[in-house]
Amino acid sequence: MTDRFLGEACPVELQDAGERLSVDELRARQLAGLQATVRTAYENVPHYRAALDGVGFVPDELKSLADLSRLPFTSKHDLRENYPFGMFAVPRTDVVRVHASSGTTGRPTVVGYTRADIDNWADLIARSIRAAGGRAGDVCHVAYGYGLFTGGLGAHYGAERLGCTVVPVSGGMTERQVDLIRDFGAQIIMVTPSYFLAIMDEMIARGIDPRETSLRVGIFGAEPWTEQMRTEVESRTGMHAVDIYGLSEVMGPGVAQECVETKDGLHIWEDHFYPEIIDPVTGEVLPDGSEGELVFTTLTKEAFPVLRYRTRDLTRLLPGTARPGMRRMEKITGRTDDLMIIRGVNVFPTQIEELILTVEGLTPHYLCTLTRPNRLDELTVQVEAAPGLTDHSPAANALTHLIKRRIGITARVEILQPHALERSLGKAKRINDQRNR
Amino acid sequence: MTDRFLGEACPVELQDAGERLSVDELRARQLAGLQATVRTAYENVPHYRAALDGVGFVPDELKSLADLSRLPFTSKHDLRENYPFGMFAVPRTDVVRVHASSGTTGRPTVVGYTRADIDNWADLIARSIRAAGGRAGDVCHVAYGYGLFTGGLGAHYGAERLGCTVVPVSGGMTERQVDLIRDFGAQIIMVTPSYFLAIMDEMIARGIDPRETSLRVGIFGAEPWTEQMRTEVESRTGMHAVDIYGLSEVMGPGVAQECVETKDGLHIWEDHFYPEIIDPVTGEVLPDGSEGELVFTTLTKEAFPVLRYRTRDLTRLLPGTARPGMRRMEKITGRTDDLMIIRGVNVFPTQIEELILTVEGLTPHYLCTLTRPNRLDELTVQVEAAPGLTDHSPAANALTHLIKRRIGITARVEILQPHALERSLGKAKRINDQRNR
Repeated sequence: MTDRFLGEACPVELQDAGERLSVDELRARQLAGLQATVRTAYENVPHYRAALDGVGFVPDELKSLADLSRLPFTSKHDLRENYPFGMFAVPRTDVVRVHASSGTTGRPTVVGYTRADIDNWADLIARSIRAAGGRAGDVCHVAYGYGLFTGGLGAHYGAERLGCTVVPVSGGMTERQVDLIRDFGAQIIMVTPSYFLAIMDEMIARGIDPRETSLRVGIFGAEPWTEQMRTEVESRTGMHAVDIYGLSEVMGPGVAQECVETKDGLHIWEDHFYPEIIDPVTGEVLPDGSEGELVFTTLTKEAFPVLRYRTRDLTRLLPGTARPGMRRMEKITGRTDDLMIIRGVNVFPTQIEELILTVEGLTPHYLCTLTRPNRLDELTVQVEAAPGLTDHSPAANALTHLIKRRIGITARVEILQPHALERSLGKAKRINDQRNR
Repeated sequence: MTDRFLGEACPVELQDAGERLSVDELRARQLAGLQATVRTAYENVPHYRAALDGVGFVPDELKSLADLSRLPFTSKHDLRENYPFGMFAVPRTDVVRVHASSGTTGRPTVVGYTRADIDNWADLIARSIRAAGGRAGDVCHVAYGYGLFTGGLGAHYGAERLGCTVVPVSGGMTERQVDLIRDFGAQIIMVTPSYFLAIMDEMIARGIDPRETSLRVGIFGAEPWTEQMRTEVESRTGMHAVDIYGLSEVMGPGVAQECVETKDGLHIWEDHFYPEIIDPVTGEVLPDGSEGELVFTTLTKEAFPVLRYRTRDLTRLLPGTARPGMRRMEKITGRTDDLMIIRGVNVFPTQIEELILTVEGLTPHYLCTLTRPNRLDELTVQVEAAPGLTDHSPAANALTHLIKRRIGITARVEILQPHALERSLGKAKRINDQRNR
């Protein structure tokens, strides 16, 4: 694989000033950013003023990063209550861009950006692409959806900032995606991992060996994916598969990025976002290394500052490696939103994915269906066979046993023909919960 | 309507330097741009070198704008023959963005932009929005499709450049489009006219009076539309409906724009694009005022200069009005691509649209189907009734007679129930030609 790698570890001289900060410089900058953010949020956003007044916190009392723990959390619920523009800290006319979630589970969450926010965002995505192994001059195929979803335009502005030739494909039309990768010679692809699987399948169906394409770096985000999926994709394509993290409420993609030279979790761009890990039940801040819910406070955002936003993502903070000044977060394998509680056992779809990918003849295309006949939870795992697998029983038995032994639940496993499951054009749907219907 | 208009005629002090050029200054700039473009195309694009050599034209001989007529034309075919990057005049690494047509009728046409090209494009869209009545600080709802189509990203960068709050909605999810217009209070919408009809219908279906929304300016492009459609939309919404023109081969939207204060055709941004009208058969240049095929030569483009590109659009050049220095082009009502030749009679769908909108009880949702039973062309016009039209016969008879009298052909008219025709999310499909199947 190394022969197809664009460069070695990102040279320090290519790193931007933020990436090269020492820990002391970083902490000083974080404190200044935090003080400014809390003050502006308090002065301009009625929700924050009420929330801080509610706990008797005065912005001037913020003297150290540790004081952050005295601030109240912000939740998705708070954003929805202030729909559409109530959380903006600047006049609406200073907001140059609005993004919004689809609102399928309630009111959409709406976020806004000033010109400086868009600029910072582009810088952070450019930094992320570089950390992933991309370089100025590369052709960057952006297959994240464009529009109100932050993935497409976020990736686009960053790739443009880095100096790539950006191909703004957006999602959908999988055959065409393959044509364009082949004809334009993309080195980088930015896409959800599940949609990349669909693209890879299309290549194989057309007799194109994914190892023979020009692609060298896949920057995969917007949904949890496993180490096993990385192994699967890298071995079949010969490219590097690295993880990008973000969420629209905090900025969009580019909050954290896995570095290609270490592939050991995602460095958080701590010069812009201050992370905490909390106990999701008590709200208590946990020390680095402990698993808990990830919480972010923005340090530089103007239009839409967020104080202690609860991401619902479960992870741990670890010391920096490829960017020693910044902490890493462990690859997210479960979001509290995706947690399936099955007869009292907590299971994330990625735990199932991890097991599927250890069974010969199975593919990473799967769906977990939850039902409750006779008042008892039942899990059915549907997973597609690889082409050519004629006898499905051994794989089904192997997966059933693995799930029982490793997770402790009895699942019904159905092996499907290749392409039987609907392909996602963006974020994959892994859970079909029919229990409350 | 005037009470809802954002401002009066675009004040000269809001116009940019290009818009304020005198005709003499403009011609001098055009000549310099033309000389530079021809030279760079000749030196860097093998296709142009061969084409110019083929007619014995040496770039240094270009002494006046009139000399342009000695250059060969460029056609869509030439772009396809040079797929994907053969027409680029700069190294690929200087190309920061690629757009492409969908390629449904052959190889896609691929176009590229340098950073300066993207910058000029944003300036020209900003100028276009301002000419349409939009202002910095307005909320601009962009419902053109994002991705490889130039409409969405073109509009987006320009609205951002002008200083709008851009809502990058892209196409689709019509209910949500209505929610977002209502909740975010958009003043400007940029969308294809046919998709705007779908949005307007959705408003009405939900009991929202389109006259009561915040919308004040609709910038409609990417497909031909009629004066009758403008009247229909303006009377039902109370907003201004103005036309924007462009094509990806030349730049994308923003090549020409109708000014809200005159609504008398589209001013061509002649400081960047030099227009000619030719006889589509002989290729002879026709004087201003004559109808013929529109041809463009770019004057400032770096990555993808085009010399005498045949647009296939039929129109006339007219003297400038709201921008006296620039010539206007008459609103495009027919593209040669859309020309239906029915038993020897030339008919554009917009001619049918124009007649439909004079008949009480009919809507602008229509489809022309061409068949050839017994070796004779037949035209069926399907058109949706307005809600509440119970007896369809009088409208059908009226339209049949009008088509016979005004166009000279016998068409079969079918009046359909409201919403019977599929809605386009972008460019409307007006012709269903089944003659060669």
